[in-house]
Amino acid sequence: MQSLYHTYVANETGLPGTSYVSSPEGLSLGVSSPLTDEPGTNPEQLIGLALATCLNATLRINEANRHEPVDAAVRVRVDMAHDTEGYQFFLHAEVHLPKHDRQSAEAMLALAERRCPVAKLVGPSANVTIELVDEFTTQA
Amino acid sequence: MQSLYHTYVANETGLPGTSYVSSPEGLSLGVSSPLTDEPGTNPEQLIGLALATCLNATLRINEANRHEPVDAAVRVRVDMAHDTEGYQFFLHAEVHLPKHDRQSAEAMLALAERRCPVAKLVGPSANVTIELVDEFTTQA
Repeated sequence: MQSLYHTYVANETGLPGTSYVSSPEGLSLGVSSPLTDEPGTNPEQLIGLALATCLNATLRINEANRHEPVDAAVRVRVDMAHDTEGYQFFLHAEVHLPKHDRQSAEAMLALAERRCPVAKLVGPSANVTIELVDEFTTQA
Repeated sequence: MQSLYHTYVANETGLPGTSYVSSPEGLSLGVSSPLTDEPGTNPEQLIGLALATCLNATLRINEANRHEPVDAAVRVRVDMAHDTEGYQFFLHAEVHLPKHDRQSAEAMLALAERRCPVAKLVGPSANVTIELVDEFTTQA
């Protein structure tokens, strides 16, 4: 494996606490359990942000490379629920390509799923779904 | 699935741009490609932070529940490399439990891997490894 980029991140506190990128001026984020009222982000938001960012970046790079309208937007809902052991997350990504017809939108999404590193990591899980939508589901 | 917590996150810009939690006062993060000099976090850091935070929180909850020393720390190295199509990420998590002997540390880690939602999502990938260490690898 020839690494093109690497980063180190860490958590030494659990929740609540701090998670950080261990490089000079690296990101540092307060984190907390979503089951409490304490301020901070949490693993649910972080993995959702990773998928939304990576999938949308991949979609938009592919659109630009193919000289198509660069219109992609991705929203991810993350749910936390009990599991047989501990908890489990469910990720549902909605992909919106308003300037593409259904057929070309499906082709762009299929290509992005094959190229997006985060989709490759989490996509095989039965808890993860990625769906093309005409508009984002009303948030609740 | 009975959801105990849910959150919505989104990216509408690709990289560079912004990824955000779509709730009042939700987290908003500048994001950029790690292959450029632009400021911002990136999908590599976000998925690494998700794993480090979730796995360490799980370890520490289990330690506390078992009345053991709450000593866990997790560091994750994320590498980006070419893949057959697009890019791929490699995640290597180092788990440090300084107040546990090897046998009890292995048991704590095995339990945490079965319970941590993010480890369940990414752990099955051949690109993801989780290792017990006596000290964190020197960063480079």
